[in-house]
Amino acid sequence: MNSLQGRLDRCAINTATLGHREPLHLTIDRIARAGFGGIAPWRHEVEAADVARISKQIRSLDLEVSGYCRSTYFPASTAEERVANIRSNTRALADAAELGARCFVMVVGGLPAGSRDLSAAREMVVDGIAALMPEAKKLGVRLAIEPLHPMYAAERSVINTVGHALDVCRQLDPDNGVLGVAVDVYHCWWDPQLAESVASAGKDARIAAYHVSDWLIPTTDMLLDRGMMGDGVIDLKETRRLIESAGYMGMTEVEIFSRDRWWKAPPDEVLRCCAERLQRVC
Amino acid sequence: MNSLQGRLDRCAINTATLGHREPLHLTIDRIARAGFGGIAPWRHEVEAADVARISKQIRSLDLEVSGYCRSTYFPASTAEERVANIRSNTRALADAAELGARCFVMVVGGLPAGSRDLSAAREMVVDGIAALMPEAKKLGVRLAIEPLHPMYAAERSVINTVGHALDVCRQLDPDNGVLGVAVDVYHCWWDPQLAESVASAGKDARIAAYHVSDWLIPTTDMLLDRGMMGDGVIDLKETRRLIESAGYMGMTEVEIFSRDRWWKAPPDEVLRCCAERLQRVC
Repeated sequence: MNSLQGRLDRCAINTATLGHREPLHLTIDRIARAGFGGIAPWRHEVEAADVARISKQIRSLDLEVSGYCRSTYFPASTAEERVANIRSNTRALADAAELGARCFVMVVGGLPAGSRDLSAAREMVVDGIAALMPEAKKLGVRLAIEPLHPMYAAERSVINTVGHALDVCRQLDPDNGVLGVAVDVYHCWWDPQLAESVASAGKDARIAAYHVSDWLIPTTDMLLDRGMMGDGVIDLKETRRLIESAGYMGMTEVEIFSRDRWWKAPPDEVLRCCAERLQRVC
Repeated sequence: MNSLQGRLDRCAINTATLGHREPLHLTIDRIARAGFGGIAPWRHEVEAADVARISKQIRSLDLEVSGYCRSTYFPASTAEERVANIRSNTRALADAAELGARCFVMVVGGLPAGSRDLSAAREMVVDGIAALMPEAKKLGVRLAIEPLHPMYAAERSVINTVGHALDVCRQLDPDNGVLGVAVDVYHCWWDPQLAESVASAGKDARIAAYHVSDWLIPTTDMLLDRGMMGDGVIDLKETRRLIESAGYMGMTEVEIFSRDRWWKAPPDEVLRCCAERLQRVC
């Protein structure tokens, strides 16, 4: 395995890590200045700015866009809402293409309001992704299904393991034209089938993104208490070894939601710590 | 599938549901008076009382002990601690036998303090269970591995799916003399492999217990915010159908940890609500 020591050019910062506290153009400059090779911006930031200008800035700084975050949730109570969700995602693909994003990150959504039907929600997700694929192919934007931790099954994602995401990829895209998987250690570190699923994903060249953070003990908030790499219990070197053994050569992207700790720290301090930890513990 | 309507004799109450607010002998009377057929007490309650007397009381009320909660965690930093944990569990087996418990519920433990080695912790669990099996066989106490939700992988259980628990059963006890699985909907409702794993467990007659509660939206505490059946998003009828189709004929046991809601309600009100929901939504 290649060390990340001295290789921040192989590392990216997801802008959520900085808490979305300033306009995107400032964040872009900050991330480039800190020496990172990549950035993963969010739609609400890009859509609040001028995508052509943002795209030009990112290219001029020689940053790679490791992913564009993220899909509108697919499941909904009515067919009209589901169509609207697909349209929203289709529009985002145009921006992903303009940004030259390596992938459009798909957090697929949980149960529709009032529903207990997990199978139906999973079907809605499969149908939604299928509907998005032609446009993604046309634009050359890879769709990366990001399985979320099972604790988000009700509200954020009914796809909860790498194996499950991979099954959907193979079902909808057997020739591997456009669908891949975003592997985030926070979501899948616990999975006894992780090594097997990652190896299998690698054989198909389906690993589209690799995200790092850490699982804290204790975790005080289910959404906004992710840890800085090294502060928790995830064996990050081992996980990157799995991913790279499976053939993934892309960015290692830091994505930390941390309301009470890192979102309160000065952005440059956060970036310095990310840089240090990426090189030492990841 | 048989309805639970009018069949509280097929339903049990885990004493944690009442918040452990009174001595066990009062809880036992309360549960019997409310018409339930079973009870699942905890070690700290039983060990604080006289096990022979408790056992006599339970039998005289014709209550089945659907499970005895629960094992001391197996993983630990030192070999001495691991041996002590096995000894602690061995002692509890004697009480489980005296109580006539259908199973000794095994919550296996998370990572040892300071460790990031999930594989090593899982090996410690396998070794610990193996060490417990001879005594369990001798006493005729079934050991039920309870996979916990993946959000507890770090601190409470490194076994997180029914499929994983079943693998351990088959590895250690291929002839199915003593190891089974406790299926708790709260921990495994999200699992895309649940139907397959439960069916497979059923073929081996490995399902030793079935626990119900509900997953609330939102869930405000990772440990102590479980919902009353019907108040959340789990399809409880479908889950019981899976379990019973797999051949499980035992108790449906209610286990709700709810610091801010049900542990504040009068115990008899909690039991009335459990009875109503078991018969209507489970």
